[in-house]
Parts: sequence; structure tokens; C-alpha cells
Amino acid sequence: MSDFPKSISIEEDGPREGFQVEKTLIPTAQKIELIDALSNTGLKRIQIASFVRPDAVPNMADSEQVVAGITPQPGVTYTGLWLNEKGLERAIATNRLHIEGSITLSASETFLKRNQNRTLEQLIESQHTIVEMYKRHNVDVTTANLMATFGCNFEGDIPEEKVLSLAGIMFDIAAEHGVTIKRFGLLDTMAWATPDRIKRIVGAMRNKYPDLALSLHLHDTRGMGIANAYAGLEMGVAEFDSSIAGMGGCPFAGHKGAAGNVCTEDLVFLCDEMGIETGVDLEALVDCGVLAEKIVGHSLPGAVKVGGSLKRLRERAAA
Amino acid sequence: MSDFPKSISIEEDGPREGFQVEKTLIPTAQKIELIDALSNTGLKRIQIASFVRPDAVPNMADSEQVVAGITPQPGVTYTGLWLNEKGLERAIATNRLHIEGSITLSASETFLKRNQNRTLEQLIESQHTIVEMYKRHNVDVTTANLMATFGCNFEGDIPEEKVLSLAGIMFDIAAEHGVTIKRFGLLDTMAWATPDRIKRIVGAMRNKYPDLALSLHLHDTRGMGIANAYAGLEMGVAEFDSSIAGMGGCPFAGHKGAAGNVCTEDLVFLCDEMGIETGVDLEALVDCGVLAEKIVGHSLPGAVKVGGSLKRLRERAAA
Repeated sequence: MSDFPKSISIEEDGPREGFQVEKTLIPTAQKIELIDALSNTGLKRIQIASFVRPDAVPNMADSEQVVAGITPQPGVTYTGLWLNEKGLERAIATNRLHIEGSITLSASETFLKRNQNRTLEQLIESQHTIVEMYKRHNVDVTTANLMATFGCNFEGDIPEEKVLSLAGIMFDIAAEHGVTIKRFGLLDTMAWATPDRIKRIVGAMRNKYPDLALSLHLHDTRGMGIANAYAGLEMGVAEFDSSIAGMGGCPFAGHKGAAGNVCTEDLVFLCDEMGIETGVDLEALVDCGVLAEKIVGHSLPGAVKVGGSLKRLRERAAA
Repeated sequence: MSDFPKSISIEEDGPREGFQVEKTLIPTAQKIELIDALSNTGLKRIQIASFVRPDAVPNMADSEQVVAGITPQPGVTYTGLWLNEKGLERAIATNRLHIEGSITLSASETFLKRNQNRTLEQLIESQHTIVEMYKRHNVDVTTANLMATFGCNFEGDIPEEKVLSLAGIMFDIAAEHGVTIKRFGLLDTMAWATPDRIKRIVGAMRNKYPDLALSLHLHDTRGMGIANAYAGLEMGVAEFDSSIAGMGGCPFAGHKGAAGNVCTEDLVFLCDEMGIETGVDLEALVDCGVLAEKIVGHSLPGAVKVGGSLKRLRERAAA
């Protein structure tokens, strides 16, 4: 079954997912340089900051300065991440970010206990409080995110029934507070997804919620990132999170040095070659990938920034 | 359309494709160490040597010593590469290699002119001579290989009609000399394949030659390797060439440092997770990937050797 979308939307997560895992402090000006370069590629949505505790994530301590320092481009939405009301208030105070609320659950309770010392019941309870928090701040709640959708390093495989049941709980929470979930994020937090698992879980979600926009957040830790994106495209998924040059990591995965998020320019290359529109200029994106590598000072996993796109080769061949 | 095979056969090309592109000379004993380790993973076919001019490929100059030095395992077929009669005779003289003849054409005539200074007509003519050479040496000719099947850096895209027409020429050559092609290798020599292109060309070949075994030789230069393998699996392809740790390169591609062949352990991981049998022990393969990296002295692209398989995590989760 192939049901390719005509076009896809990409949320570029590199400036947040990528810089946050770097051990050395990246100068604010260099973060801004990358974000400004990304803003000129045709990307429509870029996550650029994280309003978390500076001692926990030192490379996000300058988030306010980063947001204030960029040159926003018309038509580009800039987003941020927060984990509590204080973070949300910091994000709102920048006056420059698109602020959107979300409900988040985890498909793995073991993961939850290890990383947040909470039960699923406690997490569900807290989502009610979070929705109310958003309403107090006049923030629309439009997205649901399910962590560890495809498997968990500590719990193992996640059956699709569990995904469906947790999705149902999230829709119930939304309904109870009068908000409408329009976009459902399937997060492969610990890189357990494989193409067949993508198809099973996306298929189950599409069958139950045919009008819901599904998005995939993929990691490339086990080399399956692009194959998983392709499986998602085959199922009609049209929204993806990705990271320039494949920046990012798997802070919870219990291993170091593994590849990060699925690589934006490799994803755009795949779509370009398949005739799926991304609105993004691949050559400009490749330049951003090279810049990202220069900024972090070590090689990053993306392939097309090394291997090159086919556009110039086609032009040369035709000349 | 999904037509997954129940099991696949892998030809491990790392010891040949990988070592031949290394700039520093790898000691013979280390090549043997890797081959012996690979022989104990369950891999059934390993390409371990190349009988070409030592001045052209210095790292293959010790091919005779490598072949003589390994500890062959029962059930494992060891193969080599040669480009002319002298090379074939060297391979035969080892008395240890499985010697099989093949007919080879290139889907790109531009590539042929640049790399071999020959026209397609000359290459076709030479294949008749080559088949006769094999017959003189009592070597079965069972395989056809088509280089640049999915595109060419110098010629651009390759239409499937061209692939079909060249396949027809190869079958005609075989018929004229009374030999039977049983396996047809689609070689993505310059990494132009994408999953949809794999499906188009594999589909066209399967329609025309439903009983022919197709094999895919994939490079990961643009990050599409595993996605292409997945697309091949979806089309029922059951034979793949791959390289441990993703060793290898694209000597013709006109760029350096790009990723090599599709990575054996990442391919086996994909198959394991999908329930497609490979006969290979993934954990042993990961150890070989780590060993390969140690031997070449620089990082190699495979992901699972860094990210880890899921087997141990599942066992821990179940404990």
C-alpha cells in the first residue's frame, strides 16, 4: 500500500536537539548564524530554543539571547521547548516564538519512571494541569505527542493497542478541557522503529483516526531513520521532525556517540528524488549542514552533505 | 505492493570493497583476522580478495597471501574479483576460492568511456571473449551484472527501458555461448538509487524475467542504503551485497569521504526486526564491525555497531 503525500512539512529541530547535546558551549552568535542560514532555505518551522534549567542543559542557557538575536524571515515559524510553567512563561516573554500547547504521554511506563520518576497515572493527571496552564496563558493546545511509540530501551516492544489506548486517553483529556488535537506526534524517542513497525503503528492510528495529521519524530541511532521516513511516506505521513546534518542525540538511550535525529537534508533529498514537495532548497540545506559541522567542531552523520545531491550532476550530464 | 522474502542471502564485500579503498596498507594478518571473524558469524559468502594490478590497488597486492592465510569455515563460500584472464588465473591458482563467471555491462556509456575508455559496443563485444575465456577454464557463467543501473554521475538518470534492453543483450550473449544466467546483479555503482527508483527498476525486471534471481549492490553515499534495501525487500529481492561496518567507497564518484557500501550489520538488523531470516548472528557481526573500525584506524559509517541491537535491551526489559 503506497499513499505518498504530494508535499510534506518539516520541523527543523537541529538548533535545539543538536546544540543541547554538545559537551562544549557553542557561542550564541554561532547558534544565531545557523538559525539565520536555516531560515533562508525554505524551511517553514524551526525549533530554536529550549527554556529548561540552565544547569541541566548548559547549551540552552542563552535561549533568550538566541531568540532575540535571530533575523526572523517572513513565513517562518520559530518554536521552542519548555517542560513547565516557568519555561512556558520564558518562551512567551520572548515575544517572537510561535507558542503552541501540547499533551504528552509516554508509551513506556518504565521509561517514565526512570526519567521522570512518575507513574503513567501521575503523568496523565499532570496533563490536565498542563492543559489548564495553557488555557490560563491563552495558548491553543493542538498537538499530542507520544514518547517511545515504537519501543523502549527499558520496556521493550510497544504493542499498537497500547499506542491506540494512550491516544484515546489523550483525546479524552483534550475533550474534557474543550481543546482540539489536530496533530499527533509519534516519537521514536529511543530509535526502536523499523519500517514495518512504522507501517503497523501508523496504519493502526490512521484506521482509528483517519482525519488526524500524524507526524513522525525519528532518530537514526540504528541507521533506520531514512528507511523509517520512507515507510511513513508510503503510509501518507506528511509531517516530519528532522535535524540539519543529523545533529542531536539520544540522551536517554544508555549509549554515547550514536547518531542523532533523522537528517533534514537526507530527508529532503529523498523527497526531491521522489517528486514529493518540501519547499526547501536542498543545496542551501547542504550548506547549512556543512556550517553545522563547522560550528560543533566534529563530524555529523548526514550523508548528502558529503555525497552531494544529484541536481548538479544531472545539470553537468545534460550540458 | 509488499512481497517480502522469507530469507535473504548476503554477499559480504567488506574485505574487498573496504580494504581496497584504504590509503594506508593494511597488514595481511589483520585482513585475515577480519575474514576469519566474519566466517564465524553465519555469513555464507564473503568476497575476500581482488586479483588486479598491485600498483593500481596496493591494498589488494597480498590477495594470494590473504586467501592462503584464512581458516575456511564449512558452508562458507569465499569469492574474489578479477578484471582479466591473468586475474582469473591467479584466483583459480589459489585453489580455495569459489570461481564463478559473469557477464558485465554498464547502463551508462559515459561512465564506460571515462573509466575504461571503451564504447558500449566494445564492452558488449568483449563479453563474448570473456564468456569464451571462462569456458576455456571450465568456469560456469551464471551471473550478469549491470553497473550504474540506477543512474550515473556523468550521464544522469537511467531509464528502465535501457536496463531492460541491456539485460536482453546479456541474455543473448549467454544464449549464444550456451551458458545460463541465474542471478542478475543490479549495481548502484554511483549511489543514484532511491526507494522509488529501486521499485521501478526491480519491478520492470521482475515483470520481464519473473524467474530470475535479482540481487542489489547498494552504496550509502547519499544515506539511502537501508531505505533502498527495504524497497528491494518490499519487491521480493532476496540477495544483497553489503559491507561490514559500511566499509568501502565510491572510487568513481568524484568526491571523497563519502559513505561506502550498505552496511551488513544494519541490513541484518533491519531483517531481524522484520522477521526475515539472514542466518547471521547480529551480535557477532557487530563485533566484526568494531574490529573493522579498529583495523582501518578510523570511524566507519555503520550505525548498529554504535547504537546497539535491540536483542539485549529486550532481554534486559524482560528480566
